[in-house]
Amino acid sequence: MKFPDTALSRAAQGLAPADIVFRNADVFNPFTCSWDLVDFGVKDGIVLGTGTYTGRKEQDLRNARVVPGLIDAHVHIESSLLTPREFARLAARHGTTTAIADPHEIANVMGGNGIRYMLADSAHADIDIFFMLPSCVPSTPEDIGGAVLDAADLGEFIGHPRILGLGEMMNVPGVLSGDRVVREKLALADIVDGHAPMLSGRDLNAYILNGPQSDHECTTATEALEKLSRGMFIYLREGSAEKNIRALLPVVTTCSASRCSFATDDRHADLLVSEGHIDALVREAVSHGLEIETAIRMATLSPADRFHLYDRGALTPGRVADFCVLEPGGRFFIAKTFRRGTITGRSEYTPGIVPPVTMDASTIGPGSLSIPGGHDARVIGLVPGEIITRELRYHVSEGGLPDLDRDIIKAVACSRYEPGLFSVGLVHGFGLKQGAIAGSIAHDAHNIIAAGACDEDIRSAVRAVIKGHGGLAVACEGNVTVLPLDCAGLMSSGAFEDVSLQLGRLHRMTETIGAGEDPFMHLSFLSLPVIPEIRLTVRGLFSFRQNTRVPLFYENP
Amino acid sequence: MKFPDTALSRAAQGLAPADIVFRNADVFNPFTCSWDLVDFGVKDGIVLGTGTYTGRKEQDLRNARVVPGLIDAHVHIESSLLTPREFARLAARHGTTTAIADPHEIANVMGGNGIRYMLADSAHADIDIFFMLPSCVPSTPEDIGGAVLDAADLGEFIGHPRILGLGEMMNVPGVLSGDRVVREKLALADIVDGHAPMLSGRDLNAYILNGPQSDHECTTATEALEKLSRGMFIYLREGSAEKNIRALLPVVTTCSASRCSFATDDRHADLLVSEGHIDALVREAVSHGLEIETAIRMATLSPADRFHLYDRGALTPGRVADFCVLEPGGRFFIAKTFRRGTITGRSEYTPGIVPPVTMDASTIGPGSLSIPGGHDARVIGLVPGEIITRELRYHVSEGGLPDLDRDIIKAVACSRYEPGLFSVGLVHGFGLKQGAIAGSIAHDAHNIIAAGACDEDIRSAVRAVIKGHGGLAVACEGNVTVLPLDCAGLMSSGAFEDVSLQLGRLHRMTETIGAGEDPFMHLSFLSLPVIPEIRLTVRGLFSFRQNTRVPLFYENP
Repeated sequence: MKFPDTALSRAAQGLAPADIVFRNADVFNPFTCSWDLVDFGVKDGIVLGTGTYTGRKEQDLRNARVVPGLIDAHVHIESSLLTPREFARLAARHGTTTAIADPHEIANVMGGNGIRYMLADSAHADIDIFFMLPSCVPSTPEDIGGAVLDAADLGEFIGHPRILGLGEMMNVPGVLSGDRVVREKLALADIVDGHAPMLSGRDLNAYILNGPQSDHECTTATEALEKLSRGMFIYLREGSAEKNIRALLPVVTTCSASRCSFATDDRHADLLVSEGHIDALVREAVSHGLEIETAIRMATLSPADRFHLYDRGALTPGRVADFCVLEPGGRFFIAKTFRRGTITGRSEYTPGIVPPVTMDASTIGPGSLSIPGGHDARVIGLVPGEIITRELRYHVSEGGLPDLDRDIIKAVACSRYEPGLFSVGLVHGFGLKQGAIAGSIAHDAHNIIAAGACDEDIRSAVRAVIKGHGGLAVACEGNVTVLPLDCAGLMSSGAFEDVSLQLGRLHRMTETIGAGEDPFMHLSFLSLPVIPEIRLTVRGLFSFRQNTRVPLFYENP
Repeated sequence: MKFPDTALSRAAQGLAPADIVFRNADVFNPFTCSWDLVDFGVKDGIVLGTGTYTGRKEQDLRNARVVPGLIDAHVHIESSLLTPREFARLAARHGTTTAIADPHEIANVMGGNGIRYMLADSAHADIDIFFMLPSCVPSTPEDIGGAVLDAADLGEFIGHPRILGLGEMMNVPGVLSGDRVVREKLALADIVDGHAPMLSGRDLNAYILNGPQSDHECTTATEALEKLSRGMFIYLREGSAEKNIRALLPVVTTCSASRCSFATDDRHADLLVSEGHIDALVREAVSHGLEIETAIRMATLSPADRFHLYDRGALTPGRVADFCVLEPGGRFFIAKTFRRGTITGRSEYTPGIVPPVTMDASTIGPGSLSIPGGHDARVIGLVPGEIITRELRYHVSEGGLPDLDRDIIKAVACSRYEPGLFSVGLVHGFGLKQGAIAGSIAHDAHNIIAAGACDEDIRSAVRAVIKGHGGLAVACEGNVTVLPLDCAGLMSSGAFEDVSLQLGRLHRMTETIGAGEDPFMHLSFLSLPVIPEIRLTVRGLFSFRQNTRVPLFYENP
């Protein structure tokens, strides 16, 4: 408990003026799920309370609806392609004032230094960014990137005021088998987020019993209801790829709303700009029939309570004066965001620190992507809208690649940690008719991953990514368009406005060369060995089922 | 976070047997406010979860309703007149498995040693007893008893696993004025209970801003709604004297239930036996129209969450297997209570430790209670059913006492800390026609307090209290009935069955001599100088309004 502040106490009693008084505010109260037309005073960024106050400044809100600042319960900021500061500048415009981030991606690249960078860059951001410690770096020994974080490495961060606990524990087998390192990590913190897609029944019981308290991976109401009933907090996720709100809404009731929150998980800059952040999730939920009051509670008090952030989530005495003024009308659009009683989300872009990047990759020499023919090959089959892949078997004839009729093109995984190390495979489902795409976002080690209908364009795209110290690139007949991701190969150090525009340009380019929806998303999961069925790592093809590396060509014809 | 337990995890997965499996249980789930007919396994006193389990033992509950163990959010165990262990033995029979106690009374008598006694005596009780540190010992410098506890004294207890935070902060003026000692106490703990009857508006804002997070003193729905809306947890109280559930029920909704709990505060042994404990409060709430599911949530998960006791409040994986089996039918009666998976509340009485008692009182000599006549006197006027008093003015003629026609009798406050120190006053409203009553429960210093229609009987009653090392006594024409309270003059070291019977006998005796309802309750508040309007302390009459001692007789006739 902090020492009570006498000056605030005097101002709350009306014995001294407030810094600012907001008049005629129709304030949402998440404790009663009701709206009250009130005045409220703010001093030193703290809510004094509602009632008759005089302030050095006053602002008449003219009966506008006011809600506590929105909270994102689980987000990988790296997935926005923005630095924490830029993410915050953008999120603040959409009413967000607090985000709980898991720096899982950058930690796989840079280890503890990545977490330190995220803490430093977010220290003076437009919103409060708290972090959960990434619990699974690497996701598997098969996917070691720039770091291995054990419990002692994570333990160094415990006690930091913006470290809230342990991030999504994805290593379900490790939890269930009682893996020593996993148990050491689970014992680090009181707050532990889970990640257990499809886990059910007794295994779910055991998983919960080991510590994880939340799940944001539910895709059906049945799954969410089981997890909720067994005591988990449920984060309803709506990211760029995974959209679960509609399916999960049946579990949200006025009784369960205190256990439900919203999360964006992975949401690109362009979607953040065009649709919004947590405000968009509230609108989505309301559009499918959820009472707006219940939705707002889920976006404010529920996540604040879940993360023991008792200084926010409601506009009551002693809490931070973080709030949004809504647009007139019944819908949920943010007119203004206030943080600590001051309008926010209107700052200009200022360049931040760029962490020293690890991009120890070599460009690929001419001719080194050739694949001999005459055999049956293992081809990675994409599944539209999902991140699983299928292992497909195709006969490859001599000189028959790329096989645009059957949509079989080359994929390349190129190490960014060991210059010269790369492997070549085949992939079905990108739809490319020409050119190539490449990127330095490749879960979870974030090596360079590429796919293309033309060896030269693959080489150009990879070269562009390396040259940009990371990036997303499209190459076609020698023309290369690149969005450099100079922050660890994951994020751009640029302004969100620019990143969003460049991302739009890239997506138009991929359309031009024939790619289906979101090719960079599919590309980014091509390497992740913990998801079925077959993946391309820098050391070759990896079979999830066989849990081992497998050759490109089947041995038994 | 505790280190995950591999044996529990294996059992939860079904890889090893449970200790016991409860079959066909209609289990209440407070996360969804619904009932599910399930089997559930328990190992080492911990719930493994629901599902198909095999156990070394099995128990078929035959579709009986099962609810998580009940929780009392705020209780002064001393007020039951029972030791913690006996209170627990009784409460367990009524479905209670956890109580949050404030040892305010014994701390006023014995200071830190009183808290230590309560911790020690409750260490192996039939229920889990947690403590909040008494924040206001003494309630005022005018009422110093056996101890003054400052922040450093209380700080010694911080870190004890059963000390949860700071107990009800009653010193509202001290909070509002920014009193240094009060602020030091408020800074001791994250969890702070409040006590702010009738506080409202800006003063309530300031009070909340200083730290107190709950209130159990609301007497109207308007008051409770204001406090709830400003972020306080509300404990609906139903004690022996103060009964607030019916009046407060309008504020309880499925939205607010997560912020509302039940508390007994002060509940005598006889009421605990005849009506029950938290189970009685659930029945009371339901009888006035609250949905039973909402009431059960308020008696289980809500207080568990409020006190950050995340290991209880629901029967989900990893939580303690504390639960009640209900009687058949729709009503809420406890058939059996289980603690850590084992039936509880069936233990026999075993004598506990009796703390070394401080009872440095002298008996009152003959003739020393005489009051001269011929003047207008200040008479303490009782108010039926309330603990406030009125300052009444009566003319006392020479030899006119007791004045049974006008119901004016003598009252005596006799120090238990300074032998020979006592004072005599006059009181109206007891209705005594003969005899006297005396007790060593006199808030908050717990000196000996007596009132009677006969000087000799007053002296006898006081003598009996002293002889019993504390107690409640009725004397009439030389016959004395006493309930000894040998534990600090507040609690009996006897079995709850005996205490309850003796209390009943005492109440019948007080009826015989003409007393109105609950004379010992009125007697116990006769000394408390922080409540309007006039009190009798060991140093004489004290006027609340004038905030000073005043003489028995008015100076201006």
